Amino acid sequence: MVATKRKIAVVGSGAVGGYYGSLLSRAGQDVHFLLRSDYELVRKRGFRIASSEESFVLYPVQSYRRAEDIGPCDLVIVAVKATANSVLPDVLRWLVGPETVLMTLQNGIGNAELLAEHFGAERVVGGLCFVCINRTGPGEIQNYLPGRIDLADFSGELRERTREIAAMMSEAGVWCVPSPSLEEALWRKLCWNVPFNGLTILGGAISTDAVLASPSLTRLARLLMVEIQSAARAHGFTIEDSFLDHQFEITGRMGAYKPSSLVDYVKGREIEVEAIWGEALRRGTKAGVPMPHLETVYLLLKREF
Amino acid sequence: MVATKRKIAVVGSGAVGGYYGSLLSRAGQDVHFLLRSDYELVRKRGFRIASSEESFVLYPVQSYRRAEDIGPCDLVIVAVKATANSVLPDVLRWLVGPETVLMTLQNGIGNAELLAEHFGAERVVGGLCFVCINRTGPGEIQNYLPGRIDLADFSGELRERTREIAAMMSEAGVWCVPSPSLEEALWRKLCWNVPFNGLTILGGAISTDAVLASPSLTRLARLLMVEIQSAARAHGFTIEDSFLDHQFEITGRMGAYKPSSLVDYVKGREIEVEAIWGEALRRGTKAGVPMPHLETVYLLLKREF
Repeated sequence: MVATKRKIAVVGSGAVGGYYGSLLSRAGQDVHFLLRSDYELVRKRGFRIASSEESFVLYPVQSYRRAEDIGPCDLVIVAVKATANSVLPDVLRWLVGPETVLMTLQNGIGNAELLAEHFGAERVVGGLCFVCINRTGPGEIQNYLPGRIDLADFSGELRERTREIAAMMSEAGVWCVPSPSLEEALWRKLCWNVPFNGLTILGGAISTDAVLASPSLTRLARLLMVEIQSAARAHGFTIEDSFLDHQFEITGRMGAYKPSSLVDYVKGREIEVEAIWGEALRRGTKAGVPMPHLETVYLLLKREF
Repeated sequence: MVATKRKIAVVGSGAVGGYYGSLLSRAGQDVHFLLRSDYELVRKRGFRIASSEESFVLYPVQSYRRAEDIGPCDLVIVAVKATANSVLPDVLRWLVGPETVLMTLQNGIGNAELLAEHFGAERVVGGLCFVCINRTGPGEIQNYLPGRIDLADFSGELRERTREIAAMMSEAGVWCVPSPSLEEALWRKLCWNVPFNGLTILGGAISTDAVLASPSLTRLARLLMVEIQSAARAHGFTIEDSFLDHQFEITGRMGAYKPSSLVDYVKGREIEVEAIWGEALRRGTKAGVPMPHLETVYLLLKREF
């Protein structure tokens, strides 16, 4: 089978967790999924994974309702919504042993900090997913754009074990790139999430192609990206203009994509307002960078629904 | 009857035109209403006017489908949506004689300019309506808040004939205050229209009380007002902070009010995006005042629906 077989837990088996967990499981890793609402259905018929290149069913699935039934792991993939972060300490303590690595694949800023605070900074790894994945039904996941994960250590320099995790992901068919700075990767990801997660909601629950089709929303998307770029610069990270251009290019290839925040909004679920827009605004303004366009979008999204 | 009886045409007999026209007609003025969709119903059963203080029916109503059947008037009240301004030159030319005064009661910036350009600046008067009036059905109009009209000459100094119009309005039961500067009155009105017309739409089609109930939307409303205040200052007009406070106070008294732009939005009609937000943004930025919060709201409202 694989060179090194790891015991892996997936906490938050929605679109992102279900997708990467299924790929790793298919590649021979020992993956245990923590599930809530989809538990029965996934247990009965597995995960159904579809992308533009291939489709497969993962069955049977090692599925659990309670973290204590999984026990300590080598690696825990954290993929719950940031809005559910408060439950993590209680769940993760069953999965963490002396050597366990915690890898957050969540959106926004502040998730790695939370894990570091509760379980120690040295075990925390952050993965920024530049992908388009939707949960299309219970246990059903669609990947619209083969993207990549930028993987970085929370505490400074890139470690060997993080390179190994990246290699394991690549072996499983995920383009995973070790990155020297988690914070820089986070700012880069915000260049997409801040405008496109926000404007698909505020544009009237529209998909990304409709944002691109509107000159005014495209202009606003760029203004928001430039504020993120300035905030990143104030934190010591240079994001090139060509990177901003590239965000529009890849979005054009996504078609009628509905970002996760829009899906949450449409379903009446809580949006990750603080993790994506709130933290970006606070960190930018704290560094002396005015972010009035972001502030407006943030205050509009924060409104009581 | 009245001291001076005037022949008056009302162009755009919706909420604002129907309301003030009915009050003037009841007070003995010779008022002629130009109607489109509500013509049959108003002809048949008149205008039904309701406010917190009184209700009355104006019947019969001098109603017309075509301006040429009305002929030249002493005063024309222009109360169409700014989005319909392009039809005005063709309609008004039938109503304008040598001495005719054109009084626009429309929202936003640019309406008086249009009238001046086509019919001469000296005959143009602008009235800023600080009121809450909704059309609740065909020929049915509800006034939620007894407000006031600030009346000013487009071309500089306040003229005697403008004071007389204000007196006529007051005689009819409308609190109408002659104002030395139309432009100042316009900026003051924008302090309300920009935040409340905008945020009731972008807040998810909510009424004004819901904006006030949301701390984040209230904060954004204030940020927008401060930008208008700065733009007004750059144009030579001082708007006091207490005036901004007062906008929140009167809005609190309006209850669950739906501003005209929200009504348009909900009905799928075109919103006065350029007259209210677009012109304010252009005039402010032209005077060197950054208005990024307004720009964000403008670009969001301008989106293709």
